[in-house]
Amino acid sequence: MQKSIEVCLTPALLDLYSIEDRVVVVIDVLRATSSMVYGIDNGATAIIPVAQVEDCLNYANEGFLLAAERNGEVVEGYDFGNSPFSYSREKVNGKTIVLTTTNGTKALHLARNRAHQVVIGSFLNLEALCNYLRVQDKGVLLLCAGWKDKFNLEDTLFAGAVVRELRKDFTHFDDSSVAAEDLYALAKDDLRNYLHKSSHSHRLAQLNIEEDVKFCLQLNICTTIPVLIGDSLVALEVGA
Amino acid sequence: MQKSIEVCLTPALLDLYSIEDRVVVVIDVLRATSSMVYGIDNGATAIIPVAQVEDCLNYANEGFLLAAERNGEVVEGYDFGNSPFSYSREKVNGKTIVLTTTNGTKALHLARNRAHQVVIGSFLNLEALCNYLRVQDKGVLLLCAGWKDKFNLEDTLFAGAVVRELRKDFTHFDDSSVAAEDLYALAKDDLRNYLHKSSHSHRLAQLNIEEDVKFCLQLNICTTIPVLIGDSLVALEVGA
Repeated sequence: MQKSIEVCLTPALLDLYSIEDRVVVVIDVLRATSSMVYGIDNGATAIIPVAQVEDCLNYANEGFLLAAERNGEVVEGYDFGNSPFSYSREKVNGKTIVLTTTNGTKALHLARNRAHQVVIGSFLNLEALCNYLRVQDKGVLLLCAGWKDKFNLEDTLFAGAVVRELRKDFTHFDDSSVAAEDLYALAKDDLRNYLHKSSHSHRLAQLNIEEDVKFCLQLNICTTIPVLIGDSLVALEVGA
Repeated sequence: MQKSIEVCLTPALLDLYSIEDRVVVVIDVLRATSSMVYGIDNGATAIIPVAQVEDCLNYANEGFLLAAERNGEVVEGYDFGNSPFSYSREKVNGKTIVLTTTNGTKALHLARNRAHQVVIGSFLNLEALCNYLRVQDKGVLLLCAGWKDKFNLEDTLFAGAVVRELRKDFTHFDDSSVAAEDLYALAKDDLRNYLHKSSHSHRLAQLNIEEDVKFCLQLNICTTIPVLIGDSLVALEVGA
Protein backbone atom coordinates (compact mmCIF):
# COMPACT_ATOMS: atom_id res chain seq x y z
CA MET A 1 0.00 0.00 0.00
CA GLN A 2 0.97 3.65 -0.40
CA LYS A 3 1.76 5.41 2.84
CA SER A 4 2.09 9.17 2.83
CA ILE A 5 3.52 11.73 5.22
CA GLU A 6 2.38 15.33 5.15
CA VAL A 7 3.44 18.18 7.39
CA CYS A 8 0.84 20.76 8.41
CA LEU A 9 3.01 23.74 9.30
CA THR A 10 0.45 25.49 11.50
CA PRO A 11 -2.96 24.60 13.00
CA ALA A 12 -4.50 27.34 10.82
CA LEU A 13 -3.96 25.07 7.81
CA LEU A 14 -5.38 21.87 9.32
CA ASP A 15 -8.71 22.14 7.50
CA LEU A 16 -6.85 21.61 4.22
CA TYR A 17 -5.87 18.08 5.19
CA SER A 18 -7.87 14.90 5.16
CA ILE A 19 -7.04 13.18 8.46
CA GLU A 20 -9.90 10.74 8.95
CA ASP A 21 -7.68 7.82 8.03
CA ARG A 22 -4.43 9.19 9.43
CA VAL A 23 -2.42 9.20 12.58
CA VAL A 24 -1.95 12.86 13.56
CA VAL A 25 1.17 13.69 15.54
CA VAL A 26 0.80 16.91 17.52
CA ILE A 27 4.10 18.77 17.85
CA ASP A 28 4.82 21.66 20.21
CA VAL A 29 8.34 20.85 21.27
CA LEU A 30 8.95 24.10 23.18
CA ARG A 31 7.45 23.06 25.50
CA ALA A 32 3.96 21.57 25.69
CA THR A 33 4.39 18.25 23.92
CA SER A 34 7.81 17.66 25.48
CA SER A 35 6.24 18.09 28.91
CA MET A 36 3.34 15.81 27.98
CA VAL A 37 5.72 13.07 26.90
CA TYR A 38 7.89 13.52 29.97
CA GLY A 39 4.90 13.59 32.32
CA ILE A 40 3.28 10.44 30.96
CA ASP A 41 6.68 8.75 30.87
CA ASN A 42 7.07 9.65 34.54
CA GLY A 43 3.90 7.90 35.50
CA ALA A 44 1.21 10.54 35.22
CA THR A 45 -2.08 8.65 34.95
CA ALA A 46 -3.44 11.07 32.37
CA ILE A 47 -3.10 14.58 31.02
CA ILE A 48 -6.33 16.32 30.10
CA PRO A 49 -5.71 19.05 27.52
CA VAL A 50 -8.24 21.87 27.70
CA ALA A 51 -8.60 24.84 25.38
CA GLN A 52 -9.12 27.72 27.80
CA VAL A 53 -7.60 28.68 31.12
CA GLU A 54 -11.09 28.85 32.60
CA ASP A 55 -11.75 25.25 31.57
CA CYS A 56 -9.12 24.15 34.08
CA LEU A 57 -11.36 25.40 36.88
CA ASN A 58 -13.98 22.78 36.03
CA TYR A 59 -11.53 20.26 37.43
CA ALA A 60 -10.54 22.27 40.53
CA ASN A 61 -12.19 19.99 43.07
CA GLU A 62 -11.16 16.64 41.65
CA GLY A 63 -7.67 16.47 43.12
CA PHE A 64 -6.00 17.02 39.78
CA LEU A 65 -2.91 19.09 39.17
CA LEU A 66 -3.83 22.23 37.27
CA ALA A 67 -1.36 23.53 34.69
CA ALA A 68 -1.87 26.67 32.63
CA GLU A 69 0.53 28.51 30.35
CA ARG A 70 -0.11 31.60 28.26
CA ASN A 71 2.52 33.42 26.25
CA GLY A 72 5.22 31.28 27.78
CA GLU A 73 4.41 31.96 31.42
CA VAL A 74 2.59 30.12 34.20
CA VAL A 75 -0.85 31.64 34.67
CA GLU A 76 -1.16 33.10 38.16
CA GLY A 77 -2.83 30.80 40.65
CA TYR A 78 -1.97 27.56 38.83
CA ASP A 79 0.21 24.70 40.06
CA PHE A 80 2.48 24.99 37.05
CA GLY A 81 2.72 25.72 33.33
CA ASN A 82 4.53 23.77 30.66
CA SER A 83 8.09 23.60 31.91
CA PRO A 84 9.20 19.97 31.65
CA PHE A 85 10.81 20.22 35.09
CA SER A 86 7.31 20.41 36.55
CA TYR A 87 6.56 16.97 35.10
CA SER A 88 9.16 14.96 37.04
CA ARG A 89 8.26 11.57 38.51
CA GLU A 90 8.04 12.88 42.06
CA LYS A 91 5.57 15.53 41.01
CA VAL A 92 3.31 13.65 38.60
CA ASN A 93 3.52 9.91 39.27
CA GLY A 94 -0.01 8.59 39.72
CA LYS A 95 -1.52 12.04 39.19
CA THR A 96 -3.89 13.42 36.58
CA ILE A 97 -2.96 16.81 35.14
CA VAL A 98 -5.31 19.30 33.52
CA LEU A 99 -3.30 21.42 31.08
CA THR A 100 -3.88 24.39 28.81
CA THR A 101 -1.16 26.01 26.70
CA THR A 102 -0.97 28.78 24.11
CA ASN A 103 -0.50 26.56 21.07
CA GLY A 104 -0.20 22.86 21.81
CA THR A 105 -3.57 22.20 23.38
CA LYS A 106 -5.29 24.19 20.64
CA ALA A 107 -3.74 21.98 17.98
CA LEU A 108 -4.84 18.89 19.90
CA HIS A 109 -8.41 20.10 20.06
CA LEU A 110 -8.54 20.85 16.35
CA ALA A 111 -7.39 17.34 15.46
CA ARG A 112 -9.23 15.26 18.02
CA ASN A 113 -12.62 14.87 16.41
CA ARG A 114 -11.47 14.22 12.88
CA ALA A 115 -8.32 12.13 13.05
CA HIS A 116 -8.09 8.36 13.10
CA GLN A 117 -5.74 8.73 16.07
CA VAL A 118 -3.91 11.59 17.80
CA VAL A 119 -0.51 11.00 19.38
CA ILE A 120 2.09 13.31 20.89
CA GLY A 121 5.59 13.86 19.53
CA SER A 122 8.73 15.52 20.86
CA PHE A 123 12.44 15.02 20.55
CA LEU A 124 12.24 13.16 23.88
CA ASN A 125 10.30 10.26 22.30
CA LEU A 126 11.35 10.57 18.65
CA GLU A 127 12.57 7.02 18.21
CA ALA A 128 9.66 5.37 20.00
CA LEU A 129 7.22 7.47 17.99
CA CYS A 130 8.85 6.59 14.68
CA ASN A 131 8.99 2.92 15.52
CA TYR A 132 5.26 3.06 16.12
CA LEU A 133 4.38 5.06 12.99
CA ARG A 134 6.55 2.79 10.85
CA VAL A 135 4.45 -0.30 11.48
CA GLN A 136 0.97 1.24 11.24
CA ASP A 137 -0.96 0.81 8.02
CA LYS A 138 -1.96 4.47 8.11
CA GLY A 139 -0.72 7.70 6.59
CA VAL A 140 0.71 10.30 8.95
CA LEU A 141 0.05 14.00 9.38
CA LEU A 142 2.65 15.85 11.40
CA LEU A 143 0.81 18.81 12.93
CA CYS A 144 3.08 21.63 14.04
CA ALA A 145 1.51 23.79 16.74
CA GLY A 146 3.54 26.81 15.64
CA TRP A 147 3.23 30.12 17.44
CA LYS A 148 -0.22 31.69 17.41
CA ASP A 149 -1.03 30.05 14.07
CA LYS A 150 2.22 31.13 12.45
CA PHE A 151 5.03 28.87 11.29
CA ASN A 152 7.83 28.22 13.76
CA LEU A 153 11.22 26.63 13.31
CA GLU A 154 11.36 24.30 16.30
CA ASP A 155 8.22 22.34 15.49
CA THR A 156 9.15 22.17 11.82
CA LEU A 157 12.59 20.80 12.73
CA PHE A 158 10.99 18.03 14.75
CA ALA A 159 8.64 17.21 11.87
CA GLY A 160 11.75 17.00 9.71
CA ALA A 161 13.37 14.61 12.16
CA VAL A 162 10.37 12.29 11.85
CA VAL A 163 10.37 12.48 8.05
CA ARG A 164 14.06 11.67 8.03
CA GLU A 165 13.52 8.61 10.21
CA LEU A 166 10.60 7.37 8.12
CA ARG A 167 11.87 8.27 4.64
CA LYS A 168 12.35 4.62 3.67
CA ASP A 169 9.09 3.41 5.12
CA PHE A 170 6.69 5.79 3.41
CA THR A 171 6.14 6.40 -0.29
CA HIS A 172 4.67 9.92 -0.60
CA PHE A 173 5.92 13.15 0.91
CA ASP A 174 4.46 16.61 0.41
CA ASP A 175 6.49 19.79 -0.14
CA SER A 176 6.42 20.75 3.52
CA SER A 177 7.86 17.32 4.42
CA VAL A 178 10.71 17.89 1.99
CA ALA A 179 11.38 21.35 3.44
CA ALA A 180 11.20 20.15 7.04
CA GLU A 181 13.54 17.24 6.38
CA ASP A 182 16.12 19.48 4.69
CA LEU A 183 15.95 22.04 7.50
CA TYR A 184 16.45 19.29 10.06
CA ALA A 185 19.46 17.98 8.15
CA LEU A 186 20.96 21.48 8.37
CA ALA A 187 20.19 21.88 12.06
CA LYS A 188 20.55 18.44 13.57
CA ASP A 189 24.16 18.58 14.64
CA ASP A 190 23.45 21.55 16.87
CA LEU A 191 19.75 22.17 17.30
CA ARG A 192 20.17 24.78 20.01
CA ASN A 193 22.54 26.83 17.94
CA TYR A 194 20.25 26.62 14.92
CA LEU A 195 17.26 27.72 16.97
CA HIS A 196 19.11 30.79 18.12
CA LYS A 197 18.22 32.13 14.68
CA SER A 198 14.53 31.75 15.41
CA SER A 199 12.14 34.37 16.72
CA HIS A 200 10.90 31.96 19.37
CA SER A 201 14.41 31.80 20.72
CA HIS A 202 14.19 35.50 21.50
CA ARG A 203 10.84 35.02 23.16
CA LEU A 204 12.21 32.16 25.21
CA ALA A 205 15.36 33.97 26.23
CA GLN A 206 13.19 36.68 27.70
CA LEU A 207 11.40 34.06 29.73
CA ASN A 208 14.61 32.66 31.23
CA ILE A 209 13.89 29.15 30.17
CA GLU A 210 17.15 28.27 28.48
CA GLU A 211 17.33 25.16 30.70
CA ASP A 212 13.89 24.09 29.52
CA VAL A 213 14.97 24.45 25.90
CA LYS A 214 18.10 22.41 26.51
CA PHE A 215 15.98 19.72 28.15
CA CYS A 216 13.39 19.62 25.36
CA LEU A 217 16.02 19.17 22.65
CA GLN A 218 17.32 15.90 24.12
CA LEU A 219 16.76 12.89 21.89
CA ASN A 220 15.08 9.70 23.02
CA ILE A 221 15.17 9.95 26.80
CA CYS A 222 11.54 8.69 26.93
CA THR A 223 9.91 5.64 25.41
CA THR A 224 6.29 6.59 26.02
CA ILE A 225 3.91 7.82 23.33
CA PRO A 226 0.95 9.76 24.74
CA VAL A 227 -2.25 9.02 22.81
CA LEU A 228 -5.56 10.82 23.03
CA ILE A 229 -8.33 8.54 24.30
CA GLY A 230 -11.57 10.42 24.77
CA ASP A 231 -10.60 13.63 26.57
CA SER A 232 -7.33 12.40 27.99
CA LEU A 233 -3.77 11.73 26.97
CA VAL A 234 -2.59 8.39 28.30
CA ALA A 235 0.31 6.07 27.55
CA LEU A 236 -0.13 4.24 24.27
CA GLU A 237 0.11 0.51 24.71
CA VAL A 238 2.31 -0.33 21.76
CA GLY A 239 1.37 -3.62 20.19
CA ALA A 240 -2.12 -3.39 21.65
CA MET B 1 14.31 52.64 11.69
CA GLN B 2 13.60 48.93 12.07
CA LYS B 3 12.68 47.21 8.85
CA SER B 4 11.30 43.71 9.00
CA ILE B 5 10.78 40.93 6.49
CA GLU B 6 8.19 38.24 7.04
CA VAL B 7 7.27 35.35 4.78
CA CYS B 8 3.63 34.30 4.59
CA LEU B 9 3.91 30.71 3.37
CA THR B 10 0.39 30.45 1.98
CA PRO B 11 -2.49 32.85 1.30
CA ALA B 12 -4.51 30.99 3.95
CA LEU B 13 -2.28 32.59 6.60
CA LEU B 14 -2.45 36.15 5.30
CA ASP B 15 -4.96 37.31 7.90
CA LEU B 16 -2.33 36.76 10.59
CA TYR B 17 -0.14 39.52 9.19
CA SER B 18 -0.42 43.24 9.53
CA ILE B 19 0.26 44.60 6.04
CA GLU B 20 -1.23 48.09 6.12
CA ASP B 21 2.24 49.63 6.29
CA ARG B 22 4.05 47.03 4.21
CA VAL B 23 5.00 46.31 0.67
CA VAL B 24 3.53 42.91 -0.17
CA VAL B 25 5.34 40.86 -2.81
CA VAL B 26 3.08 38.29 -4.43
CA ILE B 27 4.98 35.16 -5.46
CA ASP B 28 3.72 32.40 -7.73
CA VAL B 29 6.85 31.60 -9.68
CA LEU B 30 5.45 28.55 -11.49
CA ARG B 31 4.05 30.30 -13.44
CA ALA B 32 1.69 33.21 -12.85
CA THR B 33 3.98 35.86 -11.43
CA SER B 34 6.80 34.94 -13.82
CA SER B 35 4.42 35.48 -16.73
CA MET B 36 3.18 38.77 -15.27
CA VAL B 37 6.73 40.06 -14.96
CA TYR B 38 7.64 38.85 -18.43
CA GLY B 39 4.47 40.29 -19.98
CA ILE B 40 4.83 43.74 -18.44
CA ASP B 41 8.53 43.70 -19.29
CA ASN B 42 7.55 42.93 -22.88
CA GLY B 43 5.37 46.00 -23.15
CA ALA B 44 1.95 44.83 -22.05
CA THR B 45 0.06 47.98 -21.08
CA ALA B 46 -1.58 46.29 -18.11
CA ILE B 47 -2.53 42.91 -16.68
CA ILE B 48 -5.86 42.78 -14.88
CA PRO B 49 -5.92 39.91 -12.40
CA VAL B 50 -9.40 38.55 -11.76
CA ALA B 51 -10.50 35.92 -9.28
CA GLN B 52 -12.84 33.74 -11.30
CA VAL B 53 -12.77 32.41 -14.84
CA GLU B 54 -16.21 33.90 -15.40
CA ASP B 55 -14.89 37.35 -14.45
CA CYS B 56 -12.78 37.32 -17.60
CA LEU B 57 -15.94 37.37 -19.67
CA ASN B 58 -16.81 40.83 -18.38
CA TYR B 59 -13.90 42.05 -20.48
CA ALA B 60 -14.72 40.02 -23.59
CA ASN B 61 -15.74 42.94 -25.79
CA GLU B 62 -12.99 45.37 -24.87
CA GLY B 63 -10.28 44.04 -27.16
CA PHE B 64 -8.27 42.60 -24.30
CA LEU B 65 -6.41 39.32 -24.36
CA LEU B 66 -8.15 36.83 -22.10
CA ALA B 67 -5.99 34.41 -20.14
CA ALA B 68 -7.33 31.71 -17.84
CA GLU B 69 -5.55 28.85 -16.12
CA ARG B 70 -6.97 26.26 -13.77
CA ASN B 71 -5.04 23.31 -12.36
CA GLY B 72 -2.14 24.10 -14.63
CA GLU B 73 -4.04 24.08 -17.92
CA VAL B 74 -5.46 26.73 -20.25
CA VAL B 75 -9.21 26.95 -19.78
CA GLU B 76 -11.01 26.00 -23.00
CA GLY B 77 -11.99 28.97 -25.11
CA TYR B 78 -9.35 31.36 -23.77
CA ASP B 79 -6.48 32.99 -25.67
CA PHE B 80 -3.92 31.52 -23.30
CA GLY B 81 -3.14 30.53 -19.73
CA ASN B 82 -0.07 31.29 -17.68
CA SER B 83 2.78 29.91 -19.78
CA PRO B 84 5.44 32.64 -20.01
CA PHE B 85 5.85 31.88 -23.73
CA SER B 86 2.41 33.39 -24.25
CA TYR B 87 3.67 36.69 -22.88
CA SER B 88 6.31 37.42 -25.52
CA ARG B 89 6.73 40.92 -26.94
CA GLU B 90 5.06 40.07 -30.23
CA LYS B 91 2.01 38.76 -28.43
CA VAL B 92 1.52 41.32 -25.66
CA ASN B 93 3.22 44.60 -26.59
CA GLY B 94 0.68 47.39 -26.20
CA LYS B 95 -2.05 44.98 -25.12
CA THR B 96 -4.06 44.66 -21.94
CA ILE B 97 -4.42 41.13 -20.58
CA VAL B 98 -7.16 39.87 -18.28
CA LEU B 99 -5.81 36.94 -16.28
CA THR B 100 -7.08 34.41 -13.78
CA THR B 101 -4.96 31.60 -12.31
CA THR B 102 -5.40 28.88 -9.70
CA ASN B 103 -3.27 30.47 -7.00
CA GLY B 104 -1.53 33.68 -8.00
CA THR B 105 -4.50 35.90 -8.73
CA LYS B 106 -6.19 34.72 -5.55
CA ALA B 107 -3.20 35.83 -3.48
CA LEU B 108 -3.24 39.20 -5.24
CA HIS B 109 -6.88 39.75 -4.45
CA LEU B 110 -6.42 38.91 -0.78
CA ALA B 111 -3.63 41.46 -0.42
CA ARG B 112 -4.90 44.31 -2.57
CA ASN B 113 -7.26 46.06 -0.20
CA ARG B 114 -5.11 45.93 2.90
CA ALA B 115 -1.50 46.38 1.84
CA HIS B 116 0.39 49.65 1.51
CA GLN B 117 1.51 48.44 -1.91
CA VAL B 118 1.37 45.17 -3.87
CA VAL B 119 4.17 44.25 -6.25
CA ILE B 120 4.98 41.11 -8.23
CA GLY B 121 8.07 38.95 -7.74
CA SER B 122 9.68 36.15 -9.71
CA PHE B 123 13.20 34.90 -10.36
CA LEU B 124 13.03 36.85 -13.63
CA ASN B 125 13.05 40.21 -11.80
CA LEU B 126 14.73 39.24 -8.50
CA GLU B 127 17.48 41.82 -8.58
CA ALA B 128 15.27 44.72 -9.71
CA LEU B 129 12.74 43.83 -7.04
CA CYS B 130 15.35 43.66 -4.28
CA ASN B 131 16.92 46.94 -5.35
CA TYR B 132 13.51 48.51 -5.01
CA LEU B 133 12.62 46.96 -1.64
CA ARG B 134 16.02 47.86 -0.23
CA VAL B 135 15.45 51.59 -0.50
CA GLN B 136 11.84 51.78 0.67
CA ASP B 137 11.15 52.84 4.24
CA LYS B 138 8.63 50.03 4.61
CA GLY B 139 8.61 46.52 5.96
CA VAL B 140 8.10 43.70 3.48
CA LEU B 141 5.75 40.74 3.44
CA LEU B 142 6.66 38.03 0.96
CA LEU B 143 3.37 36.31 0.11
CA CYS B 144 3.77 32.84 -1.36
CA ALA B 145 0.79 31.79 -3.45
CA GLY B 146 1.42 28.12 -2.72
CA TRP B 147 -0.79 25.42 -4.17
CA LYS B 148 -4.44 25.59 -3.21
CA ASP B 149 -3.57 27.21 0.11
CA LYS B 150 -0.87 24.68 0.94
CA PHE B 151 2.85 25.36 1.24
CA ASN B 152 4.94 24.82 -1.87
CA LEU B 153 8.67 24.68 -2.35
CA GLU B 154 9.12 26.87 -5.41
CA ASP B 155 7.50 29.99 -3.99
CA THR B 156 9.28 29.50 -0.67
CA LEU B 157 12.62 29.23 -2.47
CA PHE B 158 12.01 32.53 -4.21
CA ALA B 159 11.07 34.16 -0.90
CA GLY B 160 14.36 32.79 0.43
CA ALA B 161 16.24 34.35 -2.48
CA VAL B 162 14.78 37.75 -1.59
CA VAL B 163 15.63 37.34 2.11
CA ARG B 164 19.18 36.39 1.18
CA GLU B 165 19.55 39.50 -0.98
CA LEU B 166 18.11 41.78 1.68
CA ARG B 167 19.64 40.22 4.79
CA LYS B 168 21.95 43.17 5.41
CA ASP B 169 19.33 45.82 4.73
CA PHE B 170 16.62 44.68 7.11
CA THR B 171 16.79 44.18 10.86
CA HIS B 172 14.02 41.69 11.72
CA PHE B 173 13.26 38.33 10.14
CA ASP B 174 10.58 35.87 11.19
CA ASP B 175 11.00 32.11 11.41
CA SER B 176 9.63 31.50 7.94
CA SER B 177 12.17 33.97 6.51
CA VAL B 178 14.96 32.01 8.19
CA ALA B 179 13.62 28.72 6.84
CA ALA B 180 13.12 30.09 3.33
CA GLU B 181 16.61 31.57 3.22
CA ASP B 182 18.22 28.32 4.36
CA LEU B 183 16.24 26.29 1.83
CA TYR B 184 17.26 28.66 -0.95
CA ALA B 185 20.91 28.35 0.09
CA LEU B 186 20.56 24.57 -0.27
CA ALA B 187 18.82 24.79 -3.62
CA LYS B 188 20.30 27.78 -5.39
CA ASP B 189 23.08 26.07 -7.30
CA ASP B 190 20.57 23.89 -9.11
CA LEU B 191 17.01 25.03 -8.58
CA ARG B 192 15.54 22.68 -11.16
CA ASN B 193 17.16 19.68 -9.62
CA TYR B 194 16.02 20.70 -6.14
CA LEU B 195 12.46 21.20 -7.32
CA HIS B 196 12.38 17.70 -8.71
CA LYS B 197 11.86 16.70 -5.10
CA SER B 198 8.68 18.74 -4.92
CA SER B 199 5.14 17.56 -5.44
CA HIS B 200 4.50 20.42 -7.85
CA SER B 201 7.26 19.06 -10.02
CA HIS B 202 5.21 15.91 -10.50
CA ARG B 203 2.14 17.94 -11.33
CA LEU B 204 4.12 20.00 -13.81
CA ALA B 205 5.74 17.02 -15.47
CA GLN B 206 2.29 15.68 -16.19
CA LEU B 207 1.45 18.95 -17.88
CA ASN B 208 4.47 18.83 -20.19
CA ILE B 209 5.69 22.24 -19.20
CA GLU B 210 9.30 21.47 -18.41
CA GLU B 211 10.30 24.28 -20.78
CA ASP B 212 8.13 26.72 -18.85
CA VAL B 213 9.78 25.69 -15.60
CA LYS B 214 13.23 26.12 -17.06
CA PHE B 215 12.23 29.57 -18.29
CA CYS B 216 10.74 30.67 -14.97
CA LEU B 217 13.87 29.71 -13.02
CA GLN B 218 16.09 32.12 -14.95
CA LEU B 219 17.52 34.93 -12.83
CA ASN B 220 17.23 38.60 -13.70
CA ILE B 221 16.26 38.56 -17.37
CA CYS B 222 13.70 41.31 -16.66
CA THR B 223 14.05 44.70 -14.98
CA THR B 224 10.35 45.52 -14.62
CA ILE B 225 8.43 45.33 -11.37
CA PRO B 226 4.67 45.03 -11.89
CA VAL B 227 2.73 47.00 -9.28
CA LEU B 228 -0.97 46.90 -8.58
CA ILE B 229 -2.64 50.25 -9.25
CA GLY B 230 -6.39 50.07 -8.80
CA ASP B 231 -7.45 46.89 -10.59
CA SER B 232 -4.44 46.60 -12.85
CA LEU B 233 -0.83 45.53 -12.77
CA VAL B 234 1.37 48.05 -14.55
CA ALA B 235 5.09 48.76 -14.67
CA LEU B 236 6.33 50.39 -11.49
CA GLU B 237 8.11 53.64 -12.20
CA VAL B 238 11.10 53.21 -9.93
CA GLY B 239 12.11 56.47 -8.34
CA ALA B 240 8.64 57.89 -8.88
